[in-house]
Amino acid sequence: MKVASYLDTPEEVVQMEGAKGVRVRWVIGNQDGAPNFAMRHFVIEPGGHTPAHSHPYEHEVFILEGEGEVLDGDTYRPIKAGDVVFVAPNEFHQFRNTGTAPLRFLCLIPIQQRCC
Amino acid sequence: MKVASYLDTPEEVVQMEGAKGVRVRWVIGNQDGAPNFAMRHFVIEPGGHTPAHSHPYEHEVFILEGEGEVLDGDTYRPIKAGDVVFVAPNEFHQFRNTGTAPLRFLCLIPIQQRCC
Repeated sequence: MKVASYLDTPEEVVQMEGAKGVRVRWVIGNQDGAPNFAMRHFVIEPGGHTPAHSHPYEHEVFILEGEGEVLDGDTYRPIKAGDVVFVAPNEFHQFRNTGTAPLRFLCLIPIQQRCC
Repeated sequence: MKVASYLDTPEEVVQMEGAKGVRVRWVIGNQDGAPNFAMRHFVIEPGGHTPAHSHPYEHEVFILEGEGEVLDGDTYRPIKAGDVVFVAPNEFHQFRNTGTAPLRFLCLIPIQQRCC
């Protein structure tokens, strides 16, 4: 059993094309023997965003802090702390921080992926 | 794409033997078309606990609020907001609230399960 603060996992800057001001911690994943899915903790700085893209796997997201928008196809929808977002496989999406404080959220994906 | 507050999902009292003061919301699951894993939001009242048990699938947990303990085999380990818990398949475990405020956490499991 792993019990640790999310802060104990090193933080990486997301270097993908289309990402701006995004950092990630892989808080549960391959390194822990997770067999099916990985938990990542993201921070997006004010004005920052993840890439606008789609991929053949889902996201399960819980907003921990802050406010922003998620792109749903061609429409931006507001998100805030306490919101849940399910991005189905192949849905076009992007997360962006439209607030003045960091936007923090958990984003889980199937274990075989190493992307955003 | 689903975007909703976790409060929009109805809350159920966990009726399992060994559970006390535990409520759950299945915030992402079969009803949303999630293909691989389900996200649940739990609240344990002060003095409450989940069953002490094991099962052949994992838990991925993020503590949102409050403090308590997680049983790891035969030892209780402290947990608090911001902590991550990975319960591997077949590990004996229990979550209990040792604080004075509700203990809130996310707990994700493979989609085929309907248990705690």
